[in-house]
Amino acid sequence: MFIPWLASVAAGWKGGEDFLWSGLTAGFVCILVLLATRGETPKISARFGILVVNFLWWVVPLICALPFILALPELTLIDAIFEATSGLTTTGATVLTDLINQPRPILLWRSLMQWIGGLGILSLGLILLPFLRVGGMQLFRMESSDRADKPLPRLIEISKSIILIYLVLSGLCAFSYIAVGVGPFDSIAHAMTTVATGGFSTRDGSIGAFANPTAEIIITCFMFLGALPFVLYLQAIRGRPFLLWRDQQVRWFFLIVAFFILSVTSAHYTNNDISLGQALREAAFNVTSIMTGTGYASANYAGWGSFATGVFFFIMFVGGCAGSTTCGIKIFRFQILYSFVINQLKKIIYPKGVFVLKYDKNPIDDKFIASIISFIYMYLIIFFLLSALLSLNGLDFITAISGAATSISNVGPGLGSIIGPNGNFSSLPDFSKWILTIGMILGRLELFAILVLFLPSFWRN
Amino acid sequence: MFIPWLASVAAGWKGGEDFLWSGLTAGFVCILVLLATRGETPKISARFGILVVNFLWWVVPLICALPFILALPELTLIDAIFEATSGLTTTGATVLTDLINQPRPILLWRSLMQWIGGLGILSLGLILLPFLRVGGMQLFRMESSDRADKPLPRLIEISKSIILIYLVLSGLCAFSYIAVGVGPFDSIAHAMTTVATGGFSTRDGSIGAFANPTAEIIITCFMFLGALPFVLYLQAIRGRPFLLWRDQQVRWFFLIVAFFILSVTSAHYTNNDISLGQALREAAFNVTSIMTGTGYASANYAGWGSFATGVFFFIMFVGGCAGSTTCGIKIFRFQILYSFVINQLKKIIYPKGVFVLKYDKNPIDDKFIASIISFIYMYLIIFFLLSALLSLNGLDFITAISGAATSISNVGPGLGSIIGPNGNFSSLPDFSKWILTIGMILGRLELFAILVLFLPSFWRN
Repeated sequence: MFIPWLASVAAGWKGGEDFLWSGLTAGFVCILVLLATRGETPKISARFGILVVNFLWWVVPLICALPFILALPELTLIDAIFEATSGLTTTGATVLTDLINQPRPILLWRSLMQWIGGLGILSLGLILLPFLRVGGMQLFRMESSDRADKPLPRLIEISKSIILIYLVLSGLCAFSYIAVGVGPFDSIAHAMTTVATGGFSTRDGSIGAFANPTAEIIITCFMFLGALPFVLYLQAIRGRPFLLWRDQQVRWFFLIVAFFILSVTSAHYTNNDISLGQALREAAFNVTSIMTGTGYASANYAGWGSFATGVFFFIMFVGGCAGSTTCGIKIFRFQILYSFVINQLKKIIYPKGVFVLKYDKNPIDDKFIASIISFIYMYLIIFFLLSALLSLNGLDFITAISGAATSISNVGPGLGSIIGPNGNFSSLPDFSKWILTIGMILGRLELFAILVLFLPSFWRN
Repeated sequence: MFIPWLASVAAGWKGGEDFLWSGLTAGFVCILVLLATRGETPKISARFGILVVNFLWWVVPLICALPFILALPELTLIDAIFEATSGLTTTGATVLTDLINQPRPILLWRSLMQWIGGLGILSLGLILLPFLRVGGMQLFRMESSDRADKPLPRLIEISKSIILIYLVLSGLCAFSYIAVGVGPFDSIAHAMTTVATGGFSTRDGSIGAFANPTAEIIITCFMFLGALPFVLYLQAIRGRPFLLWRDQQVRWFFLIVAFFILSVTSAHYTNNDISLGQALREAAFNVTSIMTGTGYASANYAGWGSFATGVFFFIMFVGGCAGSTTCGIKIFRFQILYSFVINQLKKIIYPKGVFVLKYDKNPIDDKFIASIISFIYMYLIIFFLLSALLSLNGLDFITAISGAATSISNVGPGLGSIIGPNGNFSSLPDFSKWILTIGMILGRLELFAILVLFLPSFWRN
């Protein structure tokens, strides 16, 4: 919070003092927490980890909402909390309108939240979720976390490298934007929300407002990069770049993105009177944006025909690779699901055959499979519940189901005229905003880290 | 086919001779098949069973389409095949309009196809799918099919009893309709499509056209009865009626239906200016109709608010109990899914705990679970593919996704103005009708019995 304040002091923006007061309040709370938790570090158990993660992700958005409450009195309480949650979870759905005339510190704060949220998600996927065995993330336990003598120092070392990579990638991103003619402030603000696959923009029209085709292509690339496993960048730097191309998850992700870009391009091209190049560029940008859960828009894809609409709906669920800043079901789960279903088909013909499920050429334990499969189910169940709750409140069918999908997958825009790529979430009823806020955090914590709290056995002993 | 012909001779209806010719043609084909397959019965293997089932369900609709082609020259080829497939699979989606003025033999034929289709489905669920281990149906292998010395005679005996029960239930149904004032022809025609949970009606306005509230209540009850496991009726007749109430699947089904009826009642009541009684009656009728996959409509539920629309969309997937004439995912799979997900949550807290999954108090083998889970996935994947193919052809989003759902689940009507409860399928493009026809058969054969044909290993050796 001190960053927007300092920036506004340095650049002479208005509205910086709200961030000073918010920062001091937040700092005071932090000091209280520090004092209250002095003493020995407790033994880290799965239960403890779950409680800490929940506490963090439910409380931090409240603190991050402070500047919105102070600086924008026209917002309701849930508006501020919605915006902060959408920021930290890197969703990118917004209740703010007329962005170009909003105070600059507010715009910077929105980007900063997503950038920090992205970091939080990387560490969540790197350390906590594998430890908690949530939704098959244990597949990505690094060798060090199980076998090395001193797992924690090793993990901290890796985390530091990942943070450095994240910083470098953000810097590269910002410079590239500046290089192709985007203003410095917009470049920095968007760079932070690109690598975090966040999606907050400084304009109501999102990236489309800049009318800069070169920038669109570069942003497409960086959104793609933000959706790859960051650990592989670390390996690449350490002299093993080939791992990035050999990784099954990365390959599938590339193929899936390419497939949807091509099919949407043909839909866009046949439905609108544009050049093939423009169709490809706009399809590539918007498909990558929605599939990675970034949520930028460069065009209103509502007019690309019902096939494209369907694709934009379904790819919301896909997400990127595990170990990236993306949300959604994620590629590796689809890979395992695919092998699982194929094995089942084989078993019909050879009832007594034994078919081992492999991932990246290693056989996978049944436990992983069960954990991944139940994750996807729970994802769909929560999606249905969120849709039902949203439609209870009078949202139309498309707004309700796309709103549920966009919140649980941390995408950003939904479909339809209200929350579609040209719209925003400000006009929704408060109840819907609460539901969407809860959906965003549920999706971000990969559901199970929260749902487990509802089991009576969690609280026993 | 001789039944509509004989009926038209007896009652003096027009258009009976088309059925005579169709019947003779079909009879000729049957004699050829009989001659070609004389000799010893081959050893029954999973492969052989799959081939026979596929052959039957792809070829019989073509034969059943004959009378439509002869009697209604205004129909295209796919129209006739669509109508026949919709009949035999007990879907109930129709391309015929102005039903009240259609030849009576045609209306009788549509009902007959559904009634015979219902019988085919009962035997499929009783004998073939459990044998083929498709989608967890092996749970319902009767003891006799595995253990007894002479499984086939025992199965044939059971099948005979089930056919008798089906006949009695149909008769009861027809008499009840007549008793509450529906005309004899309409009563018989609807009785056949009610117990088969089929949904073909003799009026464009479906049951709503009769404006007979008492009949609606009775039809609701019979649709519910059609969705229960028929084997339990057999047990009930043999002096164990309590099995019907003790059966976990029946209980869940009852609770799920009741839950959705109540929630839709409240939505209907708040959105429309009607009495609570009417809201309850209409909600009960239409929820039961859609969830069991019957597909009658007594009112246009498009006007009941977006929550009701969402419910009508999602319950299409639910279906009834295994061993009934319904299609869809079916209750027992949801039960197993539920226990499976709960077990996964528990494993997060107790990573080393062993949690046994039970169904009806018996522990379930992991194989069953895998088989059920891959079934539900495949169901969703096929649903997505069908939606994509339908929207490729220019159908709007709601028509495409509800059309895909209604065809794979063999329900009948979809949502939206074209194929919704007040519409029909006649205006869809031919390509869409082909896709929907394939979807109906895929759903009817529980997907895997067809998908397995696409595995190279099926054709090896």
